[in-house]
Amino acid sequence: MKALRLGTAVESTFQGSGGNGMVPSPRLLAPNGGEARSAATHHREEGGNNGGGPVPVPGLTALRPTKPPRGGKKLFAVPAGNKARRREEPIWRRLVVFLSVALNIGLLLNLCCVNSTTAPPHHNDRQAEHQVCSLMNLDAAGSGSSGVGRSRASQAEEEEPVPKLAAAMAPSTGKPAVTPDSVINLDHGDPTMFEEFWQGTGSAAEIVIPGWQTMSYFSDVGNVCWFLEPGFDLEVRRLHRLVGNAAVDDGYHVLVGTGSTQLFMAALYALSPGAGAPMSVVSTAPYYSSYPAVTDFLQSGLFRWAGDASSFKGDTYIELVCSPNNPDGAIREAVLSSKSGIAVHDLAYYWPQYTAITRRADHDIMLFTVSKSTGHAGTRIGWALVKDRDVAKKMTKFIELNTIGVSKDSQLRAAKVLRVVSDAYELPEEGREAHRLFDYGRRKMAERWSMLREAATTSGIFSLPEETSGYCNFAKETAATNPAFAWLRCDREDVEDCASFLRGHKILTRSGRQFGADPRYVRVSMLDRDDAYDIFVKRLSSLR
Amino acid sequence: MKALRLGTAVESTFQGSGGNGMVPSPRLLAPNGGEARSAATHHREEGGNNGGGPVPVPGLTALRPTKPPRGGKKLFAVPAGNKARRREEPIWRRLVVFLSVALNIGLLLNLCCVNSTTAPPHHNDRQAEHQVCSLMNLDAAGSGSSGVGRSRASQAEEEEPVPKLAAAMAPSTGKPAVTPDSVINLDHGDPTMFEEFWQGTGSAAEIVIPGWQTMSYFSDVGNVCWFLEPGFDLEVRRLHRLVGNAAVDDGYHVLVGTGSTQLFMAALYALSPGAGAPMSVVSTAPYYSSYPAVTDFLQSGLFRWAGDASSFKGDTYIELVCSPNNPDGAIREAVLSSKSGIAVHDLAYYWPQYTAITRRADHDIMLFTVSKSTGHAGTRIGWALVKDRDVAKKMTKFIELNTIGVSKDSQLRAAKVLRVVSDAYELPEEGREAHRLFDYGRRKMAERWSMLREAATTSGIFSLPEETSGYCNFAKETAATNPAFAWLRCDREDVEDCASFLRGHKILTRSGRQFGADPRYVRVSMLDRDDAYDIFVKRLSSLR
Repeated sequence: MKALRLGTAVESTFQGSGGNGMVPSPRLLAPNGGEARSAATHHREEGGNNGGGPVPVPGLTALRPTKPPRGGKKLFAVPAGNKARRREEPIWRRLVVFLSVALNIGLLLNLCCVNSTTAPPHHNDRQAEHQVCSLMNLDAAGSGSSGVGRSRASQAEEEEPVPKLAAAMAPSTGKPAVTPDSVINLDHGDPTMFEEFWQGTGSAAEIVIPGWQTMSYFSDVGNVCWFLEPGFDLEVRRLHRLVGNAAVDDGYHVLVGTGSTQLFMAALYALSPGAGAPMSVVSTAPYYSSYPAVTDFLQSGLFRWAGDASSFKGDTYIELVCSPNNPDGAIREAVLSSKSGIAVHDLAYYWPQYTAITRRADHDIMLFTVSKSTGHAGTRIGWALVKDRDVAKKMTKFIELNTIGVSKDSQLRAAKVLRVVSDAYELPEEGREAHRLFDYGRRKMAERWSMLREAATTSGIFSLPEETSGYCNFAKETAATNPAFAWLRCDREDVEDCASFLRGHKILTRSGRQFGADPRYVRVSMLDRDDAYDIFVKRLSSLR
Repeated sequence: MKALRLGTAVESTFQGSGGNGMVPSPRLLAPNGGEARSAATHHREEGGNNGGGPVPVPGLTALRPTKPPRGGKKLFAVPAGNKARRREEPIWRRLVVFLSVALNIGLLLNLCCVNSTTAPPHHNDRQAEHQVCSLMNLDAAGSGSSGVGRSRASQAEEEEPVPKLAAAMAPSTGKPAVTPDSVINLDHGDPTMFEEFWQGTGSAAEIVIPGWQTMSYFSDVGNVCWFLEPGFDLEVRRLHRLVGNAAVDDGYHVLVGTGSTQLFMAALYALSPGAGAPMSVVSTAPYYSSYPAVTDFLQSGLFRWAGDASSFKGDTYIELVCSPNNPDGAIREAVLSSKSGIAVHDLAYYWPQYTAITRRADHDIMLFTVSKSTGHAGTRIGWALVKDRDVAKKMTKFIELNTIGVSKDSQLRAAKVLRVVSDAYELPEEGREAHRLFDYGRRKMAERWSMLREAATTSGIFSLPEETSGYCNFAKETAATNPAFAWLRCDREDVEDCASFLRGHKILTRSGRQFGADPRYVRVSMLDRDDAYDIFVKRLSSLR
């Protein structure tokens, strides 16, 4: 019975707190320091002790306070049957959770001293590492970012030999938990906000992979994309039919990639002629900062970055059209129209939680990813819908040469996750309506945007894009646009570099400069966990 | 009770037959045609009906004959407790197996007509596709290879819309099952031979991934390789310490990649100066056919293929040292020694099943992959051991720009699989000795090599590299080298192109030309399933 209570109590910490399994020490839950008190605290008034007063730590079964729903509004209902199921979890699972907690307690003791920028770095080159990351500014350059600590494993790597008979190690949990004094890193679009939703689905989206399964390189030897799991293909098409955001019939090929970044490179490879001058790759500013970086890092003779599409002169090009746009959420169409130009549509954010689904997109090449649709960035699964068979074959060839296919484990997991999303809308069963991803996502994003707009107003020195809306064919109602990133402008006359200004207040964002735009702008991820997002909003609203 | 018997019967087909779950029709189990009868059949005399006489198909519970251990020698013992566990499998698993069988029966009906080169292709461009694959000759260019059929899913993609409310689809099973008349595709090093071993480990290597787990991009924010799962890092180091094939202490960094191919590209990126002329990339012929293809396919300005290392003139280069060498199994060392040259050691095959472990390798950059060590090619997990921190950081940066990290699901699975391998040697428990991967692999490879050498002798027109041996520090005895590929030479004077000659006999191999060598040689995979390997050997021995 003790084990049972332990498991239940520990798992409940995932339900309410952003879910990385970190156990806060009493010190970390102490009252806010000077700069964190702010007008934004009223968002929390009904919510209880988030970022608020000290919380007692009486024992292991109550290590972490369970957090009541935000602002008294029931964001996400867990049916009673679900809770019962959780209580019946097998012993091994409780053991894993226990091990995880034990590891994290150790980890936390390590982190306390590095969890703020003022703490001494563990290595002399930590600062240098951070600079490298910031230079590239990709969506996942987390190594050595200030404010994030080192795990026990990585310390062991350099400081002490790992014991020969090692115990099983728990899966990773992403960035460490934050406190009101932490540096808040919203530079990357890490979609950990969605963890809460998937915790709520219980075991529905769980997968089991036997040791002998999918060992072959091949998944579907007759398919153009021979490494595509048929089940993933099926669920991708099914979800698009359900949501109505993209055409999948009439000969569209589904290709799978190691994230949509690999598919983006595959498209450049497939669309470049291969002879003569490199193909010009363009996109309208502000454009996703990865586009120039990924296009040029290998100095390919096939293609090269040619900058802002709106000032491009030439007939032959690949135009990247990101809609809704990263970083500013704008709905976009191709701006160039030469017959020898080709558009690649990056529709990573064209899902009902971010924008109204106003039409079924039917472009030649459309890119999607589970990172932004369901929040499973760690699986590294993206997909492309491709009309032309020869282009699909060349893109497949790229992935074959680059990584000889794509993880089948993650394809199977992505298939399962997509299936659970579709099932919740298509298959009637008690409790399923409570686990509707797009409903959850829309509510959550709308709430976050409302908090952010209020914080900007309170502060008085920031402005945000106007809210737009449209009739959503999926939701069957008018829906506001709630982008996955905030394109924030600092209006204070003496601030020319908004990212530096915010960094001075321990908020890491990505400078507008990285997107080919004015450095008075920054891009801020809206998809982090509640704890980090709450501290960010509170801190932002206090700035003058 | 019926479901129970069905599940047991169907799963037992995995134990004895190469394990792709395909159910042969009576026609497929008919007596051999003319070319398949051969002197090599004596390998089977004690083994019963493999490739032999007709087998009755009385009903679903006896759809497939269980195959006795090869040649009367007990290759792999399944402890009694294991069988009992299998009988207690949960209902859902039996359901999945049942669905899989149902799908496969459908699939098989489709395949019958395309499972030989003489059958009409489903698409006009099937031939063209095959040519593209053969040109590139990568280790997984399976698309459209003749002799492999199209699955129901891929047909649905183009011929009929997928039903909106789709049932769960079973995971893929790799290349379809073969019959004595099939084209046998040994062009790729698909390591499905190892399925049998992992089936024998039961649930030990199974992993369960909850829907909410490892959703973040980040795994270990303090590590140089920030997307590396600490548990994978741990098990990689543990296994190398156990086997003694590579140094992992004294500051080595473990980096994870989407297969070792991605790490190979990462190494080229990290070691190239980035300014001036592209870095020359060389390797002694015969060299792995992927090296030139992967080096040059993006026409990078950073590096370019410069051919055979032994004829290279220059001081600045990256030398690829594959040991044991793909394709010929030779033990290799760097042949160039300029101070401004750098070696990358590809040690994919430096494991006890293939060769004696004679020393603990401690090179600057060493590449490994689960594809060849444990047979899990479908996970796409490779790793690099890297001495220099800056090189490790640049390699990590490559993977960040290329795919923003590596599937965490597959890292967790690989960690589990490696753990099971180490546990079998390090943790005493009843039955564990029966599941020792390297013991199994050595026995299996030795048997296959013996069969192949006998077939070559019987035929009289082929020659193979001499068998070598050495004292293995891991096995603590002298062990023969049993390479993962056979480097087969056709000695018949009128045969100038061995790959074409074999293709004429429905055996697909990779031409020596692809490895920078004489086309009288071919590379033949030794790691396919028993059924395919047996037919290959039998057919080879019949050639005159």
